[in-house]
Amino acid sequence: MKTIPLILMGCGGVGCHLLQHIVSCRSLHSSQGLCLNVLGVSDSKSLVVTEDSSNKGLDDKFLMELCRVKRDGGSLSKLGDLGDCRLFSHPELQERILELASQLGGKTGLVFVDCSASSNTVAVLKQVVDMGCCIVMANKKPLTSTMEDFEKLYAYPRRIRHESTVGAGLPVIASLNRIISSGDPVHRIIGSLSGTLGYVMSEVEDGKPLSQVVRAAKSLGYTEPDPREDLGGMDVARKALILARILGQRINMDTIQIESLYPKEMGPDVMSVEDFMNSGLPLLDKDIQERVEKAASNGNVLRYVCVIEGSSCEVGIQELPKNSPLGRLRGSDNVLEIYTRCYTSQPLVIQGAGAGNDTTAAGVLADIVDIQDLFP
Amino acid sequence: MKTIPLILMGCGGVGCHLLQHIVSCRSLHSSQGLCLNVLGVSDSKSLVVTEDSSNKGLDDKFLMELCRVKRDGGSLSKLGDLGDCRLFSHPELQERILELASQLGGKTGLVFVDCSASSNTVAVLKQVVDMGCCIVMANKKPLTSTMEDFEKLYAYPRRIRHESTVGAGLPVIASLNRIISSGDPVHRIIGSLSGTLGYVMSEVEDGKPLSQVVRAAKSLGYTEPDPREDLGGMDVARKALILARILGQRINMDTIQIESLYPKEMGPDVMSVEDFMNSGLPLLDKDIQERVEKAASNGNVLRYVCVIEGSSCEVGIQELPKNSPLGRLRGSDNVLEIYTRCYTSQPLVIQGAGAGNDTTAAGVLADIVDIQDLFP
Repeated sequence: MKTIPLILMGCGGVGCHLLQHIVSCRSLHSSQGLCLNVLGVSDSKSLVVTEDSSNKGLDDKFLMELCRVKRDGGSLSKLGDLGDCRLFSHPELQERILELASQLGGKTGLVFVDCSASSNTVAVLKQVVDMGCCIVMANKKPLTSTMEDFEKLYAYPRRIRHESTVGAGLPVIASLNRIISSGDPVHRIIGSLSGTLGYVMSEVEDGKPLSQVVRAAKSLGYTEPDPREDLGGMDVARKALILARILGQRINMDTIQIESLYPKEMGPDVMSVEDFMNSGLPLLDKDIQERVEKAASNGNVLRYVCVIEGSSCEVGIQELPKNSPLGRLRGSDNVLEIYTRCYTSQPLVIQGAGAGNDTTAAGVLADIVDIQDLFP
Repeated sequence: MKTIPLILMGCGGVGCHLLQHIVSCRSLHSSQGLCLNVLGVSDSKSLVVTEDSSNKGLDDKFLMELCRVKRDGGSLSKLGDLGDCRLFSHPELQERILELASQLGGKTGLVFVDCSASSNTVAVLKQVVDMGCCIVMANKKPLTSTMEDFEKLYAYPRRIRHESTVGAGLPVIASLNRIISSGDPVHRIIGSLSGTLGYVMSEVEDGKPLSQVVRAAKSLGYTEPDPREDLGGMDVARKALILARILGQRINMDTIQIESLYPKEMGPDVMSVEDFMNSGLPLLDKDIQERVEKAASNGNVLRYVCVIEGSSCEVGIQELPKNSPLGRLRGSDNVLEIYTRCYTSQPLVIQGAGAGNDTTAAGVLADIVDIQDLFP
């Protein structure tokens, strides 16, 4: 039986789903000679580990109780019966994590699984990389930090996986890496990587006013509580940056041209969410409608996409043929078109749900299983 | 530098492209600390290996000369200057291969790359599996042999890769394996896995007679020299069988319901290719046309697909919604829709060119790179 010891950083929605997947896959993995050993779980404030962390993982009952507490909005420090576990808080938390990393990194290997949404994990991740640990991430922040951070995390490319940073569980990164390693040069990637903006653009295509569409998307739970977080394009830009860097572009967030769907004058520091929804947004309807109509007169549609090509990386609205995978996109699916030597005129297309805790966690779990050959 | 020693079985179109890819990726792979060492190449009659095969691979100049000879229709035995290589023929060929497998399999590892289209490789592959060797296949035959053969080849799942057996280089198997290992149950796969039949079905949809479409496909080089090899559905059935077995179905070729687009009375043992094209095929036009029209009256289109669901695996024409990834398919692309718990209402879709020596070889090369962690 091959054992993969891991420490989970971040046990919100994605992290809890991951723990549930790990537990429910016990017999499947065991039949494949694999055992995933959760040595510790941390949230932003605390770390829970077994007393004798070099060996036994947290037991499944405890992990499920932990998920229950987190789902109810509690923090790890609220866990009642710790059994044979110990709770560490700042600053011992960091020390204990690095202790585990140095103990296990070189010996059996250890995976740090980052399911947080925080920039704070990058410091730890950079350190554990050098101790022989593996990294699996759903968190985009560490990979969209400075180029120096990115290269540090990628110092051992076989020891890092981050499928769920782009398109949730969709096999985007795995497929790109296959293309790259086979020497098939990637000429161009164009993708709709925001379910929210995919929905918005296909609805305005039908003639609905932008303000009405965004309001509907918000009430359907498709947007962040402040829809400007989606409409600003930053989330798409982060995904684009990760793809561009994988293709070898040495660029930063501020290099990327990002088209925001709202002007600075309607930004969060100028008006409240309510004011934006009620007074700001409707002012944008006419312009979008005119652009939709202009595109339609060319037989095209508008999509909010990232385009990565040569040394450029752009994020914004593009006019695209109605009769292309992106043009045909409806609803909240993500779509990625990859053009290479092998896929020249017709792209390789990957399409499907690109958000959701369940599929994001599934992508993380597949990544963990995928690095098993690095473990003794 | 990590070295992956390999023996290539089959150096026709795909095999030669693979050798070219390996040579042209030397510096890319070297920058990743990887060296692909081609110890030997075989065709159906001969095996060429270096004298001291435990160490040095065949040099790149020799590999390119070998490709030239094969492209000109020659066999390996026609190679002029063997330099420091040796040529083995039957029955020494098999002995030498097993000798290498037992020498290297347990020590450094050794990859057998099957780019042939032959059923004859399965005997060797089954033996080398037990000697600790890895297997990478573009050849569908070994995996569509008996269930016993399949399970033998899959005895060590981490040591076998065969992306290019389904959809050429499209990331179908890799994506399916990710889904399976994350415990996301696959409810249904439906796919158009023949570029030829994809083209044929989208053309008859436009009202063209089947006979005319097949004739055009033949002259475009989309079909086998005898188009009945495509129209019979056997090639699609082989791919379907591989997918079904990966999903855990313990079935054989003869379990699969295969709908042939021509009746037995027009089979190769009854009439020549010419007779089929000129006299047989036109008799089928009316029936297909009627089915196309009936589907259209339901708002549907016809596609030649494989459907894998529960314990069933079928291959044939299905009526599908015009407004689905498969319904929208035009031309010769392959499309696969995968329905799972995570992709319930909207499937995960993978689409792109599913044939061609270049992309098939690229898929094989990505597989080889992917198993690098098994090598010291």
